[in-house]
Amino acid sequence: MAEKKMVEDITSMDEDFAKWYTDIVKKAELIEYTSVKGCMVIRPYGYAIWENIQKILDGMFKATGHENVCMPMFIPESLLQKEKDHVEGFAPEVAWVTMGGSEVLEDRLCVRPTSETLFCEHYANIIHSYRDLPKLYNQWVSVVRWEKTTRPFLRSREFLWQEGHTIHATAEEAIEETERMLNVYADLCENYLAIPVIKGKKTESDKFAGAVSTYAIEALMHDGKALQAGTSHFFGDGFAKAFDITYTNKENKKINPFQTSWGVTTRLIGAIIMTHGDNNGLVLPPAVAPVQAVIIPIAQHKEGVLEKCAEIKEKLSSKYRIKLDDSDNSAGWKFSEYEMKGVPVRIEMGPRDIEAGQCVIVTRHNGERTVVALDELEVVLEQKLKEVHDGLYNKALENREKRTYSCTTTDEIIEALKENGDGFVKAMWCGDEECEDAVKEKTGVCSRCIPLEGEAFSDVCVCCGKPAKHLVYWGKAY
Amino acid sequence: MAEKKMVEDITSMDEDFAKWYTDIVKKAELIEYTSVKGCMVIRPYGYAIWENIQKILDGMFKATGHENVCMPMFIPESLLQKEKDHVEGFAPEVAWVTMGGSEVLEDRLCVRPTSETLFCEHYANIIHSYRDLPKLYNQWVSVVRWEKTTRPFLRSREFLWQEGHTIHATAEEAIEETERMLNVYADLCENYLAIPVIKGKKTESDKFAGAVSTYAIEALMHDGKALQAGTSHFFGDGFAKAFDITYTNKENKKINPFQTSWGVTTRLIGAIIMTHGDNNGLVLPPAVAPVQAVIIPIAQHKEGVLEKCAEIKEKLSSKYRIKLDDSDNSAGWKFSEYEMKGVPVRIEMGPRDIEAGQCVIVTRHNGERTVVALDELEVVLEQKLKEVHDGLYNKALENREKRTYSCTTTDEIIEALKENGDGFVKAMWCGDEECEDAVKEKTGVCSRCIPLEGEAFSDVCVCCGKPAKHLVYWGKAY
Repeated sequence: MAEKKMVEDITSMDEDFAKWYTDIVKKAELIEYTSVKGCMVIRPYGYAIWENIQKILDGMFKATGHENVCMPMFIPESLLQKEKDHVEGFAPEVAWVTMGGSEVLEDRLCVRPTSETLFCEHYANIIHSYRDLPKLYNQWVSVVRWEKTTRPFLRSREFLWQEGHTIHATAEEAIEETERMLNVYADLCENYLAIPVIKGKKTESDKFAGAVSTYAIEALMHDGKALQAGTSHFFGDGFAKAFDITYTNKENKKINPFQTSWGVTTRLIGAIIMTHGDNNGLVLPPAVAPVQAVIIPIAQHKEGVLEKCAEIKEKLSSKYRIKLDDSDNSAGWKFSEYEMKGVPVRIEMGPRDIEAGQCVIVTRHNGERTVVALDELEVVLEQKLKEVHDGLYNKALENREKRTYSCTTTDEIIEALKENGDGFVKAMWCGDEECEDAVKEKTGVCSRCIPLEGEAFSDVCVCCGKPAKHLVYWGKAY
Repeated sequence: MAEKKMVEDITSMDEDFAKWYTDIVKKAELIEYTSVKGCMVIRPYGYAIWENIQKILDGMFKATGHENVCMPMFIPESLLQKEKDHVEGFAPEVAWVTMGGSEVLEDRLCVRPTSETLFCEHYANIIHSYRDLPKLYNQWVSVVRWEKTTRPFLRSREFLWQEGHTIHATAEEAIEETERMLNVYADLCENYLAIPVIKGKKTESDKFAGAVSTYAIEALMHDGKALQAGTSHFFGDGFAKAFDITYTNKENKKINPFQTSWGVTTRLIGAIIMTHGDNNGLVLPPAVAPVQAVIIPIAQHKEGVLEKCAEIKEKLSSKYRIKLDDSDNSAGWKFSEYEMKGVPVRIEMGPRDIEAGQCVIVTRHNGERTVVALDELEVVLEQKLKEVHDGLYNKALENREKRTYSCTTTDEIIEALKENGDGFVKAMWCGDEECEDAVKEKTGVCSRCIPLEGEAFSDVCVCCGKPAKHLVYWGKAY
């Protein structure tokens, strides 16, 4: 039977998580490979998820006073080199345009891996007085980083993202902005994608190239690995100095302003898959699901069934993203198809249901069936979608809590990971980079972040035993 | 005075149209130049126009059954070369990535100038049966063409666009799609951008590289030059053959499907500027204006003025894009600032207005002042915006009609252009490329399109005097 075949097509996640992941991205038609190594086609079903994320996030950006702009995709090599740390961090992994038409370029162009340098050049042009500040800019574009090993959504040579770039009169304002946008990202993840996240600061060794401090949100995937889901950087006035951006303050003094940048990428789609997916396929949070509910007619050849389904679809569509599958595939095939595609709610309607003025609702994440009167469907659907969101969030949070281990020695870390599998390790740290490296070498986990919230549970470093400065989340990273 | 200075800053369009144009794009803060030659920053005010165009057009695409996808920005040289005409048309003007990181690429990559080849590769992968057809795809991306001379929005090395790519079981369906999307573009231009357009077919010599036929919409700019504002191509099964795309039909026979592509670009912003702008600056059609009405307080230091303005702003904002300028610049400065920025409607409110429960509305395109009762403002504003749209459209149509010359000999063409200035020339044509070239050489105008609607007004070719086959619009092109 068709449905059996499809489910069998997906590798079990317990057997091979990596293969389970790539099975899903292919079979749920999120992406397709291309002849451009490390680049992919984002197919309609995958792109619709991104469009929904964009719509939510763009609304949040505009509500916090940001404006969209668009910078060139190319950066002249001479411009990229202006900020020392930044160029060191990015130059090794950029794609170079060396020819335009048949002409060899004098100053070769890199395809943007990120756009700090372009924004800086622009700011130097347009900022003169304190009246010109702040500028709160964002752009939705793709960027290129020449990665060696790639995986769809998680690490690809080209990926879609938004990059916010802001510039402020004072360091305080810029730090406030950095934290504000981290909170916006956490809001997106938790309240729309149903992914619980740890908000924290990166350690010195893990900062963005050119940043004074880097904030990140970290999420735990189903397999116990950590995924950095978004970052927000405070630059101080380092870029402003390197690019000679100045403004005249009210006292007529020339000052270098302070900058931030922040971004999330299509990697979030990978996070959704690995947080909520199961052995039957994708499970999508309702806020970003391209189809929030699919109507599947039962015995659709019987008189009146398709008509009633179409009527209900029409009614629900003003409020929800609804699909009616009236194709001639079997109902069983359709069940497993939309399970695999992670549609949050399935609505089944057959002749007897219609006669009784009802339908059956099945929620994807837990398989629960509910009989619902048709005239209550619109209201019940809203509740069900909320239930799905909450169910997904709680399940993910439970998984993270179950897999978070507080450890006071590196031996305890090794033990905990061995006994319970990969996960977040909470451990105190002295702040010394040598200890950070030693923990990684001994245990396999690296520092993910210093959480903004979280209490010290020991006075000494997990590695050297000297006084501890920070609580750190450690993990194996994607 | 401030307002005087600003208006003087813009070159008069009668004096130097090209300089007037670049003055406007800079001073209205639509773009800023960068150190990447031929590329520009689209600034918030410019980008917001594009976002509004996108929203309208994306809605039209979805309403006609299209889905968005995202293809890689790179095309391997070997893939680009698969369709002979196509590669000949584009290869001379592409940017080449020859290095990734420090590695020299074996098969160099071109930065997409257009994405037919990528879509074809994808279609070959995912299309097998008649059940897989049609695919109606679109993407919103930027593309790169290594132009020698560039002008903001009109011709730049990188520009934003959408490219639709569809594939169909039959030629008839594909031709229907090509025409449908041309109509969508005409709808956008006429009913949202207030730009009248001529819908037509390109002559053989002016077709897209690889197309069987190319349709276009042509608009006449204020200076009498023609601008191609959108194109829609029918490919037949040429690409399908070159890329080995086949499907099995109901009779189990393998068939090459038929394709289309269609696109509009940020060039539309250039069209808006050159169709509606005047010597005071930009004039924006209400449907895409980032700010539809600006409220300017008069004597804003007087008690209650700013409060009342804020209240009105709040009320109107649920329905319109409204800005209140409560900065400490003078009202006069604000008047000319928003005139220059092309805001369709200005709302003036001073203490006496407020006392009388009224305000003054001024429409940008004709300077008309109307006193409006505050409690009728919401309704009147809708009428006024419609009036602005209609006023802009009719003015542009009038300009086009005044500048459209029907000619039966090349001497008449020369005469008409000399006497009345540049414009559209309507003239009959035998269909011979030699005559097409000769007209251009003798008169300076080239063929723009064979209009879909329009009657023959002479039996003989404007050039050779032999029997005429087509009515053709000719013009000097941007």
